[in-house]
Order: sequence, then C-alpha cells, then structure tokens
Amino acid sequence: MKMGVLGSGMVGQAISARLAELGHEVMIGTRDPNKLGEWSTLNQKAKIGSFAETAAHGEMLFNATNGAGSLMALEMAGAGNLSGKILVDISNPLDFSKGFPPSLIVSNTDSLAEQIQRAHPDARVVKTLNTVTARLMVYPREVADGDHQIFVSGNDVDAKSQVAELLKSFGWIHILDLGDITSARAAEMYLPLWVRMYGALNSGMFNVKIVK
Amino acid sequence: MKMGVLGSGMVGQAISARLAELGHEVMIGTRDPNKLGEWSTLNQKAKIGSFAETAAHGEMLFNATNGAGSLMALEMAGAGNLSGKILVDISNPLDFSKGFPPSLIVSNTDSLAEQIQRAHPDARVVKTLNTVTARLMVYPREVADGDHQIFVSGNDVDAKSQVAELLKSFGWIHILDLGDITSARAAEMYLPLWVRMYGALNSGMFNVKIVK
Repeated sequence: MKMGVLGSGMVGQAISARLAELGHEVMIGTRDPNKLGEWSTLNQKAKIGSFAETAAHGEMLFNATNGAGSLMALEMAGAGNLSGKILVDISNPLDFSKGFPPSLIVSNTDSLAEQIQRAHPDARVVKTLNTVTARLMVYPREVADGDHQIFVSGNDVDAKSQVAELLKSFGWIHILDLGDITSARAAEMYLPLWVRMYGALNSGMFNVKIVK
Repeated sequence: MKMGVLGSGMVGQAISARLAELGHEVMIGTRDPNKLGEWSTLNQKAKIGSFAETAAHGEMLFNATNGAGSLMALEMAGAGNLSGKILVDISNPLDFSKGFPPSLIVSNTDSLAEQIQRAHPDARVVKTLNTVTARLMVYPREVADGDHQIFVSGNDVDAKSQVAELLKSFGWIHILDLGDITSARAAEMYLPLWVRMYGALNSGMFNVKIVK
C-alpha cells in the first residue's frame, strides 16, 4: 500500500522504516531532507518528499510531526491531499517551553486529534500509537511478547478497523477502541503519566497492560 | 492507629471499612450522618463525626470527598487539625456538569493535590489510590493477584514511605513513586483514560500493570 508519513523525527523514521520493511511503498515527508541523510542510506526503499508530495503519494497517511507543529504541517500537506484518506495521528501536543515536566498545548475539553479532525473534516482521523515510545510503536513484541495495550480513537469505524489491521501487522495483539475522536483526549492526557513513569523506570521501553 | 476519613461516599466508606477491618481506630467524617445509617450498622467499629471532629481524631487523614468539594471540606476540617499530619488525597477533580465524558476541574499545569498542599502547607499531602475503583483501592488482590501498579506523589518522602506501608497492608505489591506533588497532575490526568477504559471494559474492576 502507498503510505505517506508526515514528519521525519524519531517517530516518522521508525514508522517509515517499519512500513517499508513490511513491503509498503513509503514516502516520508519533511521540511528538511538533509536531516534524513544517514537514515535514507539505511532505508533506501523509502522515498523522501515535501509534506505535500508525501500526502499526495499516500493512500494512508501518518501524522508523525511534533504536536506543536502538526496543524501547520497538515496545512502544508494540503487539505485536498488528505481528503477521504485515513490519517493516523500519532502526535502528542507536548509543550516543553517551560521545561520539565511538559504540559499539554491542548487538553481536557479538546485534543490535538479533534483539532486536526475539525481542520480536515474530510480526513478519517484515527488517533493511536501516541502512548508508547517510537521503537515500541512498531515492534510491540519487544516488550512482554506484546502482551500490553494500544488504544485507538476515531469517528470512522471502518478507518479504525483498517488501522487495527495495520497495527496487527506491526505485532500488536491488544487493540482497545476507546471511542470516537473525543476519546483522543484520554490518550493524549495519559502522556504526563507516561513521562513520570519513564522517569521512574529510566527507560522508554515499557507500556501498560490492562489487568482485570 | 487513629484514622480520620473525610468523605462518606463510596470511597470514604470503602477506606473506612477496610481500615477498621485492619484494626485501626476509624472515624468517618460527613456532612450528613443520616446517609451512613445502613453502613454504620454494618461497620459498628467506625465512629461517625463532622469533618472537624474527624480531622481532630485522625493521626493520619484521608481526603475521600468529591474533588469538586475537597478544598471546602478541608477548610471545614480546620487547618489546625491537618497541620503536621499525613493527608492521603484520593480525590479526583471530575466535572460531570456537562455530562459524559467528564472533564477535569483543574489539570495540566496544576492539580487538585497541589491546590490542597498549597491551601494546607503544614499538611503532608500524598496523592494515591485515585486511579482505581473504590473496591480495588482496598482489596487490590482481587484483580490479577495484585500484580498491577498504584502510584504515589508527594513532597514528603517519609510521608510517602508511611503511606506505602499502609498500601501494603491493604494488599498492594507494586507501588510506584511518581515524584513530588506536581506529579499528581499525571495521576489525575489519567482519569479520562480510566473512564474510557471503564466504558470499553464495562467494569471498574481493572487496573494497569506496567510491563517492560
């Protein structure tokens, strides 16, 4: 499948490399192709493009940009290039401007995923993967044989179902549907706890498993 | 030990009954003793008092009031009755005034626990137990043999240590220190996710286990 990954930081690189490994036709979108020099040598199957080129290329799109810049990046990607497509939103609206711990740019009665869905009503936004570190997003079996949860939120049930299939191809076993796009508030507001657990555990390679 | 439990809802009743069961001298504080009629017949070891009487009685105190009313309840309890004592804050600042899902009255750059600590600088506030349902707070072994996490936040290391001992007496095994009282933001901001998981699982008898 043609995949367009917007954002070339750690998350964008991890998602792109994994999608290419799984045989998808990947383009990674960046404002700064130079930053991908070494990475592109290692990942020659993935093309590099602008945000607009990447959004035009992908049948399924991923927002892996920094949360603070996501709305701008998606505007640069072009509303027409997003229309009708599944947009997997992995971003977190973290504000590090006042140091540690980060706060959220938007929260509580709204979320970044909802802002993105409102800005692009024709895109089929599915929030997921934002609750784990980049490596674990795409290799979930590296922790506890994959026996832990990932969440999905979105208004489009068919889009969530397709994203769940993709997550399974990454290795995810337990995929919990939290509800419509407003439930992305819950997944984004989990980040402050994730940051504290990261601090207490001294490693990002962890996740939560629901026990009942 | 003399324990004062402020709040006579489900959480206050669960904490009080468990503390009495463990042999502590419990007083439960309420604005409305009538509401405890049936409960007090079943829990004759626990005394019933006003917020002030309960706070005066307890060597260790528990804020089990509704988050929206906690600051007022603690004011009624009397600053002098809180001074120097461990105040275990179990409350959640949930706002259901706009229906489901609830939002938080305070979040992101502040928390209810911090507001309580600021209002009562001589109290030794420890945030904990707010991330699980009332029954599970005091009988953690009823889910997955207790193999899941509870969090503590607070500025006073000795107070956190004493609260951890109490939690162990309830049956808690994995007690994770998130940091100072500002880390209570993380525990409180987890609630929206808890609410969504509750909706997806159709039961409150669950918790998260950290896997790594």
